[in-house]
Amino acid sequence: MSTGENLALLTDLYQLTMAQTYLQNRKTERATFSLFIRAYPRHRGYFVSAGLYDVLDFLENFSFDTGAIDYLRSKRLFSDEFLDFLKGLRFTGEVWAMPEGRLFFKDEPILEVTAPIIEAQIVETFIINQINLQSLIATKAARCVYAARGRMVVDFSLRRTQGIDAGMKVARASYLAGFSGTSNVRAGQRYGIPIVGTMAHSFISSFAREIDAFRAFATSFPDNSVLLIDTYDTITAAQKVVSLAREMAARGQRIQGIRIDSGDLVKLAKEVRNIFDAAGMKDIKIVGSGGLDEYDLADFSDAGAPYDSYGVGTKMGVSGDAPWFDIAYKLVEHAGRSVLKLSPGKISWPGEKQVFRQRDNQGQLRCDVIGLREDHFPGMEPLLKKVMEHGKVLPPRPTLDDSRTTLMQEIACLPDSVKAIRNPSSYPVEFTPGLRALLERTEQEVNQAR
Amino acid sequence: MSTGENLALLTDLYQLTMAQTYLQNRKTERATFSLFIRAYPRHRGYFVSAGLYDVLDFLENFSFDTGAIDYLRSKRLFSDEFLDFLKGLRFTGEVWAMPEGRLFFKDEPILEVTAPIIEAQIVETFIINQINLQSLIATKAARCVYAARGRMVVDFSLRRTQGIDAGMKVARASYLAGFSGTSNVRAGQRYGIPIVGTMAHSFISSFAREIDAFRAFATSFPDNSVLLIDTYDTITAAQKVVSLAREMAARGQRIQGIRIDSGDLVKLAKEVRNIFDAAGMKDIKIVGSGGLDEYDLADFSDAGAPYDSYGVGTKMGVSGDAPWFDIAYKLVEHAGRSVLKLSPGKISWPGEKQVFRQRDNQGQLRCDVIGLREDHFPGMEPLLKKVMEHGKVLPPRPTLDDSRTTLMQEIACLPDSVKAIRNPSSYPVEFTPGLRALLERTEQEVNQAR
Repeated sequence: MSTGENLALLTDLYQLTMAQTYLQNRKTERATFSLFIRAYPRHRGYFVSAGLYDVLDFLENFSFDTGAIDYLRSKRLFSDEFLDFLKGLRFTGEVWAMPEGRLFFKDEPILEVTAPIIEAQIVETFIINQINLQSLIATKAARCVYAARGRMVVDFSLRRTQGIDAGMKVARASYLAGFSGTSNVRAGQRYGIPIVGTMAHSFISSFAREIDAFRAFATSFPDNSVLLIDTYDTITAAQKVVSLAREMAARGQRIQGIRIDSGDLVKLAKEVRNIFDAAGMKDIKIVGSGGLDEYDLADFSDAGAPYDSYGVGTKMGVSGDAPWFDIAYKLVEHAGRSVLKLSPGKISWPGEKQVFRQRDNQGQLRCDVIGLREDHFPGMEPLLKKVMEHGKVLPPRPTLDDSRTTLMQEIACLPDSVKAIRNPSSYPVEFTPGLRALLERTEQEVNQAR
Repeated sequence: MSTGENLALLTDLYQLTMAQTYLQNRKTERATFSLFIRAYPRHRGYFVSAGLYDVLDFLENFSFDTGAIDYLRSKRLFSDEFLDFLKGLRFTGEVWAMPEGRLFFKDEPILEVTAPIIEAQIVETFIINQINLQSLIATKAARCVYAARGRMVVDFSLRRTQGIDAGMKVARASYLAGFSGTSNVRAGQRYGIPIVGTMAHSFISSFAREIDAFRAFATSFPDNSVLLIDTYDTITAAQKVVSLAREMAARGQRIQGIRIDSGDLVKLAKEVRNIFDAAGMKDIKIVGSGGLDEYDLADFSDAGAPYDSYGVGTKMGVSGDAPWFDIAYKLVEHAGRSVLKLSPGKISWPGEKQVFRQRDNQGQLRCDVIGLREDHFPGMEPLLKKVMEHGKVLPPRPTLDDSRTTLMQEIACLPDSVKAIRNPSSYPVEFTPGLRALLERTEQEVNQAR
């Protein structure tokens, strides 16, 4: 992910100042931190887990190089003892996590790290950064797929994602969530995702006449050209496409489709569909794009707009209506003692946990239960798996397509009311009596001791 | 920015399909593309330019490596002639741009690329990606600095920025905009930005008693500890800080400050300030954090909350209320012919342009004028500079601190009403008669020819 510079430094300074104090106080006991989302953004009823292997690869390769140590020394904040300690520091802990492509809900731990407290603390920033972004986008993209009701959706967001890493992770997370491809060529190369794309308005403008642009492109890609028809006048352009399609048919070639990127997208699609159908060209596909998100796609579906597929860009690629999750990585156990934070409105649940999923007879998701890690409920699936031990990733490592299939299956079993694009109902998540008792005990202990 | 993989592939597939068609049609004429923002997000009255040198470095090093060519060949979309052409492709063009740290406004070109059309087109995706993100964040951060009215503001956003690249660029762009430092250690190393940070709630929770945590940290950092006091009860904790400060004073040491991260931040700051002042500890600083943005900071300033500095995180780091700009890179000239796009609501101005800035006698910004590049208006400053020629970056290359100073000076000269945090007034931007005439002529040509 980087050249020359050290990913271990991709952390908040306070992780290092705390670490020095831990070391000076010989606090080397094991600690468990739990990662969870505190609340649903507006209109969200579920979350999709993504980003796990970027985290695990980071942990497995965690170390400070000489440049990093030299830089830290130059700040004159840290003791030589601490800097020597950092040189030899590796991540040796254990991670439990939900596999990628699982649905999860508010308050549920999606990842728990157990390690000597310095190790578990220093990696917080990277873990939150990656799981937050990738789960955020996978959730948004899953909503787009659901709203499109069977039409294909592809990722056009690279130009306006928040940076390069986001551009790559958005392409991957949206494919995980059921998108059919991405315009991002580098993501195609790195992740093996199908790549898609046609032409821009500038291409049309660079020819003296629109028809010349269409003809040139169709000649270059005689089997798979999708022509952009809204540069000047969409209806006139659709009629040109009909003429060109006739020319091409005479040569045994075909136009695959057209794309509409501006204007009244519902009205235009209907008119253009009528023009093609009247010309006997029912196989020309219509692609819609231009600032779309799941709300538009749901409205288009309701309005019967005859789109075959959608290109979805910025609003998905930055999760425009909810560009972050209220995600937290909280200390829940330290040196065998359960701990929590009592700050107003931010109570966290103590202890190492497990999430159990219950289905009905038809396999539909019924409810989740958050309990202690050692709990066991017959007939319910424990969702957190041990994915790392002694700092090494454990098999199996699912492929991106495996995780995509997992998610498709799970979303199919989630009630429609929870998947609703607007005002979803809330999925039932309960806490076990054992966990509630631990919370009470821990609150008492904390109140006495503090 | 990457290992192994090719940044040239960080583009949309359609840039490559268009390029193949251009090549087949021997369209090698020079084209000019213009980058501008079409509209202000809500409550924005100006933009801050940032990200230029990431773009110029990308252009200077642009090339497809063997892995990239092999990957493209494997897609069976492209001709051998085109793939051979890509192998030798470099960016040979010219760039005019606003230097980093300049203010700009709606419709103003911030960057113009002139090159053979294939080169100018293929780099679009990367250019938009970087200028959008960095200008977005610099603009948001400049608003935070203004709202803080002289109090220091630092960047705490790394954990929830949209990925790693964003985490780095946010630290840099917010420093450019006047922030005093960042918690992001790697950004400190790479960009030479001051790094800041203290402790997390987990640090407090990991000790049996809050006072033990305070004491341990203050011992580790006897000259610069900022203690987090809202883990259990903020007021009680402030009283503990007073006792600890007395202990330390006896040893000739001091507590630098405290941080409040939750609760009623205005009320708590006033109470805590009173506790410290009553104890004769007027020099203990109060730092505020916890989901803050420029709206909160403005409200805190109005309410007289006695904060000395602020840590600003997520909402700045993702530009939470406006997570993207309506930014476009449009073809404005091709083969000596002015061009534009007529799609409804998205008209672009043709021709190579310049932006001229007029000041009053006191140096205050009065208005901007968008004209043609060859225009000349005595007494007005042309803002676009030639920064690249024949694919090579031209000196001078300002340092980050230079650009930061440029921005501080320019913001000081912008009317307060335009800088207002809510409902700013709009800064006057005019188009020259020459540009208006060109628009009219080009519209006529396009309407006749299309």
